[in-house]
Amino acid sequence: MPHFADRLEAAIQAKGAPICAGLDPRPDWVPQSFFDAAINAHGRTPQAVRAAVRAFCLEVLEVVAPFVPAVKPQAAFFEALGAGGWDDFFAICARARELGLLVIADVKRGDIGSTAEAYAQALFGRHEIKGIMIESAHVDCATINPYLGSDSVVPFIERARLNGAGLYVLARTSNPGSAEFQQLHLKPEGTLVDEVARRIDAWGSESIGECGYSDIGAVVGATHIDAAHHLRKLMPRTPFLVPGWGAQGGHVAAVRACFDEQGKGAIVNSSRGVMHAYAAGPLKDYGETHWREAVEQAVKTFREEIAQLAAEPEA
Amino acid sequence: MPHFADRLEAAIQAKGAPICAGLDPRPDWVPQSFFDAAINAHGRTPQAVRAAVRAFCLEVLEVVAPFVPAVKPQAAFFEALGAGGWDDFFAICARARELGLLVIADVKRGDIGSTAEAYAQALFGRHEIKGIMIESAHVDCATINPYLGSDSVVPFIERARLNGAGLYVLARTSNPGSAEFQQLHLKPEGTLVDEVARRIDAWGSESIGECGYSDIGAVVGATHIDAAHHLRKLMPRTPFLVPGWGAQGGHVAAVRACFDEQGKGAIVNSSRGVMHAYAAGPLKDYGETHWREAVEQAVKTFREEIAQLAAEPEA
Repeated sequence: MPHFADRLEAAIQAKGAPICAGLDPRPDWVPQSFFDAAINAHGRTPQAVRAAVRAFCLEVLEVVAPFVPAVKPQAAFFEALGAGGWDDFFAICARARELGLLVIADVKRGDIGSTAEAYAQALFGRHEIKGIMIESAHVDCATINPYLGSDSVVPFIERARLNGAGLYVLARTSNPGSAEFQQLHLKPEGTLVDEVARRIDAWGSESIGECGYSDIGAVVGATHIDAAHHLRKLMPRTPFLVPGWGAQGGHVAAVRACFDEQGKGAIVNSSRGVMHAYAAGPLKDYGETHWREAVEQAVKTFREEIAQLAAEPEA
Repeated sequence: MPHFADRLEAAIQAKGAPICAGLDPRPDWVPQSFFDAAINAHGRTPQAVRAAVRAFCLEVLEVVAPFVPAVKPQAAFFEALGAGGWDDFFAICARARELGLLVIADVKRGDIGSTAEAYAQALFGRHEIKGIMIESAHVDCATINPYLGSDSVVPFIERARLNGAGLYVLARTSNPGSAEFQQLHLKPEGTLVDEVARRIDAWGSESIGECGYSDIGAVVGATHIDAAHHLRKLMPRTPFLVPGWGAQGGHVAAVRACFDEQGKGAIVNSSRGVMHAYAAGPLKDYGETHWREAVEQAVKTFREEIAQLAAEPEA
């Protein structure tokens, strides 16, 4: 399996823009027609809710696949579907792979030692128990949380690398409260995020792809231009995953600062703005019956905006 | 539903010790008899592995239920079972509740806004989608990660409180690398953990039970006696979840420092040391065929050790 950063770069080249479609299926925003069909098949049961959400996600994948190199399913919304939700998450990941999309599992996991290894087993490759193969979600990349330190991150790194996959480690997130701990000032200088960034750079330095980027990325919320510039400098070989486009109010200049001079080194995510385009935002006049057109229009606009932005990183 | 801290205190009184049995089902350590039965029923399939792990966990619950107030299933080991693993996690939580045990979901989740809310929906109470009730894992408590800041924690707090449940927020973990970020020194003084501790104290101050403790706890690894003393002072009303007994090499004095003068305010966890007692540690001579006796002996010893330690907090 080629290096994760090279696979990502090839996929970005093939689709024409460094973008990622987030799959955050909020049940209230799944078009009613999916619920009607699912309730018809399964009655008014939790199974029907799961079937509706799964069917919608699968159709969204078909609509966005020609335009995006990667998708980012958000585990929380699948777990919230109840006991079977993890099964739906796996199904979405499998279909995305079939469509040739890179899958970034947004799971933000973090734990220590053999527990971290178990989380990684759930995501990457396959493992054997008593001679029986257990398949993971087979994702290409996952988000993880660094709070517990290097020995919580290394098991993820090892298992990801073994499978040609990558990681995005939370550095500076895009929420309003992100500064509370992440921007605490350290002695003698710098912030917690700086320290996390230095570790991310070090972890990634062990494995640099032909494209010049490593397989250990960073989540960098594009809500602060200075922070983006600063983190780009601290982590010159680290691929960034940039949430916050669209619904979360990312700023164009801050997103641009996440790219290098060649317009490389970052991928920008939009979740609600694409998959729920019909339900909120500038395309909501499409309405539920035209949700497909709304998603297609939203992903095309998103692609154009980010392709242009990446092409003029120093503008 | 009574306050979480009061429910926990009542359960501790009823069982005689502030202890928690961790359910970290490592498949390699599940007795062969469970695999034989499962393979007999399901063939050499992933389903058989899941059935073996589930059956073992359910039997462990029966063995430990008379002796422990709470159990702590570790989500990672269920996720590692593949697509259906989350279903097994729910089944274990359900059986533990039937046995009158408090369930602490060790999930270490953390995300922002409505995503955090979705994670919380998976854990606490039930929620309605299009008039259909979706059941959560109905746990009494969950571990969460604070790295993303208050606005990532508040959705968990709100949903937990609505259901009489609690949280344990990661403060100082028990792994060797925990100091890497958690003990970074801040300007003008203190460490990252101190700052996290102050927030935990503030979140918890909004809801104190009759027992004097809040519903927002802290995970405090008992590997550093000075740190335990210090954190106990910084968070006087915060219930501690103390991992690291047994396999992780917790120190008696450090664990003792997590309790207040009345021997209250903490619950100590042992995972491998109890459920896999037959496979490793001082009771491994019991062997696989006597795994039940090994687990029962291990949990009884654990209960005696911690009951004694809590009874002499200032010794």
